[in-house]
Amino acid sequence: MNDLSVFSDPRSVAVVGASADPAKWGYWLARGALRGADRRRVHLVNARSAVIEGVASVPSLADLPEAPELVVLCAPAATVPDVVDQALAMGSRGFLGITAGIDQIHDKPGLERRIAARVQKAGARIIGPNCLGLYDATHRLELAWGTFSPGSLGIISQSGQLGLEIAGLAAHAGLGVSRFVSVGNQVDVTAADLLGDLVHHEATKVVVLYLENFGDGRELVATMARLRGAGKPVVVLTVGASDASRAAARSHTGSLTSSLEVVAAACRAAGAVLVDSPAEAVDLAHLLHGSPLPHGRRVAVVSDSGGQGAVGADALSRNGLSVPRLSASTSALLADFLPAQAAVANPVDLAGAGEQDLNTYSRVVDVLLDSREVDAVVMSGYFGCYGADTPELAARELEVVESLAGAVTSHRRPVVVHSMSHDSEAVRSMRAQSVPTLHTIDAVARSLGLAASLAEHPGSRPDPVQVPHSEIGASADYLTARALVESYGVHYPGAVLVRCGDDLPRATAQLSAPYVLKAGWIEHKTEVGGVAVGLQDHAAAEDAFQQMHARLGDGDYVLEEMDRRPDVVELIVGARRDRAFGPLVLVGLGGIHAELYQDVRIALGPVTEAQAMAMLGSLQAFPLLHGWRGRPAVDLPAAARVVAATSRLLAENPEVLEAEINPLRVGADGAVAVDALVVLADTSTKRLCGVPLTGATP
Amino acid sequence: MNDLSVFSDPRSVAVVGASADPAKWGYWLARGALRGADRRRVHLVNARSAVIEGVASVPSLADLPEAPELVVLCAPAATVPDVVDQALAMGSRGFLGITAGIDQIHDKPGLERRIAARVQKAGARIIGPNCLGLYDATHRLELAWGTFSPGSLGIISQSGQLGLEIAGLAAHAGLGVSRFVSVGNQVDVTAADLLGDLVHHEATKVVVLYLENFGDGRELVATMARLRGAGKPVVVLTVGASDASRAAARSHTGSLTSSLEVVAAACRAAGAVLVDSPAEAVDLAHLLHGSPLPHGRRVAVVSDSGGQGAVGADALSRNGLSVPRLSASTSALLADFLPAQAAVANPVDLAGAGEQDLNTYSRVVDVLLDSREVDAVVMSGYFGCYGADTPELAARELEVVESLAGAVTSHRRPVVVHSMSHDSEAVRSMRAQSVPTLHTIDAVARSLGLAASLAEHPGSRPDPVQVPHSEIGASADYLTARALVESYGVHYPGAVLVRCGDDLPRATAQLSAPYVLKAGWIEHKTEVGGVAVGLQDHAAAEDAFQQMHARLGDGDYVLEEMDRRPDVVELIVGARRDRAFGPLVLVGLGGIHAELYQDVRIALGPVTEAQAMAMLGSLQAFPLLHGWRGRPAVDLPAAARVVAATSRLLAENPEVLEAEINPLRVGADGAVAVDALVVLADTSTKRLCGVPLTGATP
Repeated sequence: MNDLSVFSDPRSVAVVGASADPAKWGYWLARGALRGADRRRVHLVNARSAVIEGVASVPSLADLPEAPELVVLCAPAATVPDVVDQALAMGSRGFLGITAGIDQIHDKPGLERRIAARVQKAGARIIGPNCLGLYDATHRLELAWGTFSPGSLGIISQSGQLGLEIAGLAAHAGLGVSRFVSVGNQVDVTAADLLGDLVHHEATKVVVLYLENFGDGRELVATMARLRGAGKPVVVLTVGASDASRAAARSHTGSLTSSLEVVAAACRAAGAVLVDSPAEAVDLAHLLHGSPLPHGRRVAVVSDSGGQGAVGADALSRNGLSVPRLSASTSALLADFLPAQAAVANPVDLAGAGEQDLNTYSRVVDVLLDSREVDAVVMSGYFGCYGADTPELAARELEVVESLAGAVTSHRRPVVVHSMSHDSEAVRSMRAQSVPTLHTIDAVARSLGLAASLAEHPGSRPDPVQVPHSEIGASADYLTARALVESYGVHYPGAVLVRCGDDLPRATAQLSAPYVLKAGWIEHKTEVGGVAVGLQDHAAAEDAFQQMHARLGDGDYVLEEMDRRPDVVELIVGARRDRAFGPLVLVGLGGIHAELYQDVRIALGPVTEAQAMAMLGSLQAFPLLHGWRGRPAVDLPAAARVVAATSRLLAENPEVLEAEINPLRVGADGAVAVDALVVLADTSTKRLCGVPLTGATP
Repeated sequence: MNDLSVFSDPRSVAVVGASADPAKWGYWLARGALRGADRRRVHLVNARSAVIEGVASVPSLADLPEAPELVVLCAPAATVPDVVDQALAMGSRGFLGITAGIDQIHDKPGLERRIAARVQKAGARIIGPNCLGLYDATHRLELAWGTFSPGSLGIISQSGQLGLEIAGLAAHAGLGVSRFVSVGNQVDVTAADLLGDLVHHEATKVVVLYLENFGDGRELVATMARLRGAGKPVVVLTVGASDASRAAARSHTGSLTSSLEVVAAACRAAGAVLVDSPAEAVDLAHLLHGSPLPHGRRVAVVSDSGGQGAVGADALSRNGLSVPRLSASTSALLADFLPAQAAVANPVDLAGAGEQDLNTYSRVVDVLLDSREVDAVVMSGYFGCYGADTPELAARELEVVESLAGAVTSHRRPVVVHSMSHDSEAVRSMRAQSVPTLHTIDAVARSLGLAASLAEHPGSRPDPVQVPHSEIGASADYLTARALVESYGVHYPGAVLVRCGDDLPRATAQLSAPYVLKAGWIEHKTEVGGVAVGLQDHAAAEDAFQQMHARLGDGDYVLEEMDRRPDVVELIVGARRDRAFGPLVLVGLGGIHAELYQDVRIALGPVTEAQAMAMLGSLQAFPLLHGWRGRPAVDLPAAARVVAATSRLLAENPEVLEAEINPLRVGADGAVAVDALVVLADTSTKRLCGVPLTGATP
């Protein structure tokens, strides 16, 4: 990646298109730029003369006493190409392209990209065009519409206004911004570049990223993993939950969106986390900013109101967290100093004791964190309001805040507060001291659930994978597919190739009945009657072959042993390549379930067996695998090995576009694949047909 | 219901336990009471003398010049019984019991209830004790901790502090309160009484109800339906989504909670709506306050940012709403006055045109409402910020608000705004004019989804149902159960009672093979091998009978025809009585699905066939019923008739505690029940055994 420092702390800036009219963008950008005038030279350029905040503009770049390092382009679209060429000739190193519609005004499709090429050739860089600007708190670089308050949140957004919404919600919740970049059309500098630049941006502690298209998704995953490694988790927002948003994203950025499930899988792989909305992003950023992650899902709820405690427990449980009953000894420790009416099992209801003595809050939290029976504590209700409502209590409330912050630091477990006060001295003090405080229990519960997911996915740089030769493919015949999957250690029943009736006696002799006969060269065999099951003996096999051959003609038929084990669960295991994120692996319950109940899990491939076990464990159907209604549990590790193997198959063979086992029959004594579909890139079909057939397996 | 007017507008109030110490409740209640001093006489009582806001207290009620109509009890618990007796002797008509722990202090369990009995005997009423007070904006009655701003939201809460949280969130979002009552221990006046009282409370337009236990749920449903009928929808919040909250609610109110699914069903029946949190309640109340309900789920999204439009479409779709593509003619109408880069399909992206001319917003909304292609319009983004950021635009922004409000009025369809401004003149103006405006797109989408549900469930007073003689029951034998279900028009295969081997020939002759043999007197037949299926002929039936008889001994065996139709979907249909809400009916996909994927729908019984159709239509498994992968659709009306019949069976037979058909086999040519379980109240088992067996059916 090239040096992007010109976009963080340029020695000089020129705003081309500066305006004195507060209704115009040129005014806001000029005003913002001038706020950094004690740190750098700020020049204003306008064809007609203008005076902004007491500073006069010059008519053209040529009238400046120096080449500005960074040029802000907010002049009319018609003038932009010339301005860029002029600045490059002077020696400018960076451009911030605000102006939109350059291609359209000039009626020259691709003009923006050609400008970018000229910029790059001159050793300079350009952000945008069609961006809303950037802000850097550390270097007092304010080149955007809107007003920012300094803080620790980094925002990189493909939609400028959505980025502003995130910044606004953050400000409303008392969270400032370290750096904001609206990436616009990304003709040169990409969101991934700007994201990577935040790894060493000291003020940034958490990043919110809004993207609609992911370009080289694998590289983006690597960058997000680097940020996570640097202790700066990335919160990702995207679109694609509805047909309408997918169509909209396509039309306004001209790019295809990846499916949400794929983006979620990519985030898990990177140690990042996908959220649904700007508000969720900001609430979570609040929690991640300075607070330790919860290394588990057990949460204690503390409230001075039974109702709020119960509502809190429900909210946490809806977000995948548990509110476990405390042990008798921990409950006894609490009962020791709480009134008789207090609830001490979890949720903990102080029953008025908090109001009587504010220290009760921190004493209870201490006991809970000491117990090691919970991974986080949520305080819900009136705390944060005491000092504001009763000034006599203000100082004591702040002391309790200190105690809470101390407890978080010493136990390295989060204490998250839902306060009925949106903003008070106590609330601000908590936020400043790693005790995240939000205004609704919904926000607390949702953020804590997401933070727990983040802790479960520490992220790592993905393995490099080869790109397929072609995106167009064709199905391999059944035996080839089977052989390839089998070569990754997946068990299949014995099988023998049968080309004509004469091959059958050898086949039935070599295999154990009952048999299955398959028309191996046909992709959708079942639909055309190309599968006959439950053939009890040679005669039945003979009969089935004659009938099928009469209907389907010559071809590579396969006679296979039939897996008849009882108490077997059928899974679907698949892998495919995503255009942006590369190999993906999928597992779900077979039959109607994957489709009707969307009970599938997707991960970026390749996955380890442990990761595959976690995928299986998070299926809604997991109880079915784990010993359903008294049946024996199935061999989960065997199923996980198949998932991992299928993911490796895709990652290691760029010519394989897709592989699917449907169903994989998993019983107490192992997993047996009874079908295989492999789609090969057109160019490589021939080569792979050379994979040797293992023939009958024991 | 008795007259509760003393709790709305008493002619005189005495606060017993008034205090000059701002850290004490007695101070807040006295101060609040005095705010109504120009409307009623306010007396302060304190054993030691106190001066509050310039008003001196008297030592005892006896020192007052009159009997106060309403007495606020916030004196120490030890003194409360005497204060009540004294006030009753003087002729007081109402008590507001703030003080908690009266039973405990006196160590007399049941004392509070005995006090209530004395109050009732004297023709007076008491709210609480252990309540947080009440507030009535219309009558300037402020008898609660906290500060309220007047408005149109009624709040009835079993948890005082949760009620205050709701009021606080409402105030933060610009929504005032018409009436607030914390119901406390409900020893006399119940939440349902207070709810009923709001039907004629003019200022109240929407009600939020928080309850943990529902007492006579059927009566509550009737009250909520009356409120809905009066144009005042009720938003219900309760607990019970987690084991922890159920245990907590049990311990702090000593009452069992109803399951959330049951409460949700009760709300639908009443035309009320269940929400998950105080914030959801307030957001929805915002939307319901004055705005028309969306009579459908089609929504158009309008934004000046492509990103916000796409995020909005996703949020709406996550909340069960659709963002349909607009027709070519409507899109053309929009394209006519929008710039070329604008998106006109839905979401509608103004592409800067909103900023250029604010009237664009109202013109677009007009076109969308005129089209009748959507049931609601959501505006998401910058609108509401223009005037605040650029004072030159303030007046024009307010004009657009007027246009939007006019469009809502004339089209009777909601326009809901997500504004990046939390609070501005334009935002306040929209809120005042039936254009609900919220600060996050999440809140807009969730509230609109809930409002659409509300429109789908207009609510009606439930039919009265008889209470069962006993809650303890026993299973009826299979033929009795079958006969009872059959008497409601549910089809069963032919069946014949078989007591001994000699009965078999007649049975097999009368029925068509294949047969099923069942040990009819055993409840869990399958578990003990009491069901044999697929008996192809008389010999097989004979054989099965001998084997089963050898194992299970004498009993009422049943030989039944076997339903072998292909392409059948198995449903589970059940009905049972809830302690609070009475008869419930349930339908779901049979097999593992109901349990594993919780794919069941519950409704308050009895339901009509149309309501049963709607239940089936909302199953996740609905596509399976509707013609799955080219199969014929099943006979849905037949399935709906069985659901409705089962619900009537429970409603009309108080001696039936539970009835279940599992499975009901539904094919293209009708629905056939192949099992029946009926649990009868112990006292009535004998009587019902007289239901005649219909014997073989054609």
